[in-house]
Amino acid sequence: MRGFKSTVRIDEATSRFFGAVSFEKPIVESVSTLEALGRILGEDVKSQFDIPPFHKSAVDGYAVNAEDTFGASRTNPSILTLIGEIEAGRKPDFEVRRGEGAKIATGATMPKGADAAVMLEYTKTIDPRHIEVWTASTPNENVTTKGEDIHTGEIALKKGVRIRPQDVGILVMLGHRAVKVVKKPRVSIFSTGDVLVKSMEEIEAGKTVDVNRPILLSMIGEAGAIGLDRGIVKDQFEEIRRNLVEGLAEADAVVVTGGTSVGAKDIVPEVVDSIGKPGVLVHGISMRPGMPTGLGIVNGKPVILLPGNPVAAMIGFEVFVRPLISRLMEADEELTSKIKGRLTRRIASVQGFRTFNRVRVRRGGDQLSVEPMRLTGSGILTSMTKANGILVIPEDVEGYEAGEEVEVQLLRPVEES
Amino acid sequence: MRGFKSTVRIDEATSRFFGAVSFEKPIVESVSTLEALGRILGEDVKSQFDIPPFHKSAVDGYAVNAEDTFGASRTNPSILTLIGEIEAGRKPDFEVRRGEGAKIATGATMPKGADAAVMLEYTKTIDPRHIEVWTASTPNENVTTKGEDIHTGEIALKKGVRIRPQDVGILVMLGHRAVKVVKKPRVSIFSTGDVLVKSMEEIEAGKTVDVNRPILLSMIGEAGAIGLDRGIVKDQFEEIRRNLVEGLAEADAVVVTGGTSVGAKDIVPEVVDSIGKPGVLVHGISMRPGMPTGLGIVNGKPVILLPGNPVAAMIGFEVFVRPLISRLMEADEELTSKIKGRLTRRIASVQGFRTFNRVRVRRGGDQLSVEPMRLTGSGILTSMTKANGILVIPEDVEGYEAGEEVEVQLLRPVEES
Repeated sequence: MRGFKSTVRIDEATSRFFGAVSFEKPIVESVSTLEALGRILGEDVKSQFDIPPFHKSAVDGYAVNAEDTFGASRTNPSILTLIGEIEAGRKPDFEVRRGEGAKIATGATMPKGADAAVMLEYTKTIDPRHIEVWTASTPNENVTTKGEDIHTGEIALKKGVRIRPQDVGILVMLGHRAVKVVKKPRVSIFSTGDVLVKSMEEIEAGKTVDVNRPILLSMIGEAGAIGLDRGIVKDQFEEIRRNLVEGLAEADAVVVTGGTSVGAKDIVPEVVDSIGKPGVLVHGISMRPGMPTGLGIVNGKPVILLPGNPVAAMIGFEVFVRPLISRLMEADEELTSKIKGRLTRRIASVQGFRTFNRVRVRRGGDQLSVEPMRLTGSGILTSMTKANGILVIPEDVEGYEAGEEVEVQLLRPVEES
Repeated sequence: MRGFKSTVRIDEATSRFFGAVSFEKPIVESVSTLEALGRILGEDVKSQFDIPPFHKSAVDGYAVNAEDTFGASRTNPSILTLIGEIEAGRKPDFEVRRGEGAKIATGATMPKGADAAVMLEYTKTIDPRHIEVWTASTPNENVTTKGEDIHTGEIALKKGVRIRPQDVGILVMLGHRAVKVVKKPRVSIFSTGDVLVKSMEEIEAGKTVDVNRPILLSMIGEAGAIGLDRGIVKDQFEEIRRNLVEGLAEADAVVVTGGTSVGAKDIVPEVVDSIGKPGVLVHGISMRPGMPTGLGIVNGKPVILLPGNPVAAMIGFEVFVRPLISRLMEADEELTSKIKGRLTRRIASVQGFRTFNRVRVRRGGDQLSVEPMRLTGSGILTSMTKANGILVIPEDVEGYEAGEEVEVQLLRPVEES
């Protein structure tokens, strides 16, 4: 710890730094929906439609009046008159009246008059004009009702989400050929050091290749921003100052690598302080590697000083710069991966099948809860935008009990509740 | 399971399918190194240089002859004559002879004659020309030797890796302004179904919006391939056949969504069989959703039939299409995330600091082992390309013992050993 009298813990450094940045409302731009993948949505997207746009059968069977089946059983079946058949994709041109039924395919539009669908398995054909129904239905049973998935005026996608393939699907479905996304923030970057050269081909004794700039430019791009490369700058006060001032003018944030330790040539923090208030807020952070990292604000804009050591620079980037880029875009995200949580209710699977179950993962205190989503049919696309995780149940497992700890692949951040 | 007499387990389906594809050697193309991020490296990249290119001191201290310090201790110090000072970035223009020492900075070039560096802490200045050395050094102690990181002729990056920011750094360092990457595979895709329309704006009773195509095109792009969009195709044998034949001609693989179940209109498998041998290899897979997924080969090229249900199509994509795209590129990867494994040796941290430790995760049988990397300095960049994980030790933990289970964020796939 030579050189730093004291260091600041990462959490405190982060809150001091983010608290002092003057975050402005992100600028949005319109891009073609198919090119919006991976960008941050810049507006709430409301649906102008009910989805599904009409009542649909969720099963292969018969469209009926639920009331006609009240009390029906195998020993006491209801007898219905068959008046037609509805295939998927066709608009039914008849009405189902009391005492009548119509054959219907999964996904097909429910005919007027009918309010429930009876599964084929619970019926029997008596003759080409009549069927027996062996089970009682309640209104809307086995029917996906109009607007059940998304109703007109509902927000289908929230501002701030990173647009994934399923979101592109929803946008196309809703008729959005273009969509407003957050403009990529600009991050200016330079390396400092008299010892730096651009590649091994220019190396001479004592020199070091500047690998940090290409690495950090790549990381800035990956994080969703545009890196502006200012090259290698000598360890000279005026040169560093000019590049910082120009960087602040052209970008939303400036990243400097090198010259941030406590040696005679480590003048970058001093230069930052010379440009504007409040200057360097934190210098020397309780992390290894990365201790010489510095965080400053000049005229409301963030300046991040990363060590010259490439590994420390990369880790400093992950800890401070990537979250900063997210905040500049008002992105609603965190790094996602696999998590463990407790099931809120039993979930069954089929022996011999691998099942992929959409779940909603929420945080309640220290615990994560995993709630299997109730679905009327696996075709409901919004389950893929509303679910934030997939729970895979292997072939040799029959399911999990409520309260059991399960591992979930996150699709979106955990919900805070 | 109505309709499918039997289904095939995912593992068996995968091995039958991948075993039958005629994988060809991927075509490579040259791209600018800064644009190679995220692409698959198409060649082994060997270093034409020793890295570091000269012996360097790993500490602030004195460059000495190790032999001069043998037996040295605080009570019996070695006395050396100070002959100069070497700063980082400067080439030393003198030689250190027996009985002599030179002040040296971390990262500075070792002078001729000297073979070890003694840390400042173990020395004392007697007068401007003489120092005491209180500790014995062994040859190369505290010295990063020439070529220790990468030696001339060594493979710095292997063919098949997905190029990450640190790899861009290595490539730039080695003087590669351009690099050979695998050409993106082409995947042709169409949706089938008389019921499909392009968006809600065209909806009429009974119709369904084709969300699968935009979703799958996005997923193909994310996986590193180029999607070729053939649009919506009617449920007609000849139309489907023409699109399949044209898709096979223009692309490395064809994905069809819809028409793959067992109804009267589900004619896609039959069409595939009509075009060439062996045709459909697997139809009906033990997964939910996604059971109607089909896998076929026509003239050596893979054809994947995904269900019309969008959720099933997305899951079928993850299980079969994404791995196929990786295989077409000979990419050496798997999905990475957090894993748990056992430490091979004790790792210490510093109380109050968050430490980020590069580790190597290997599989040995059912167990994952996590080996902390031994490093002479945190500036060694190749540790970031050789390590495949980062183990974070929180501020309030002093370290972990050998054998303890720890969680690691993977940077690259686990090594098989």
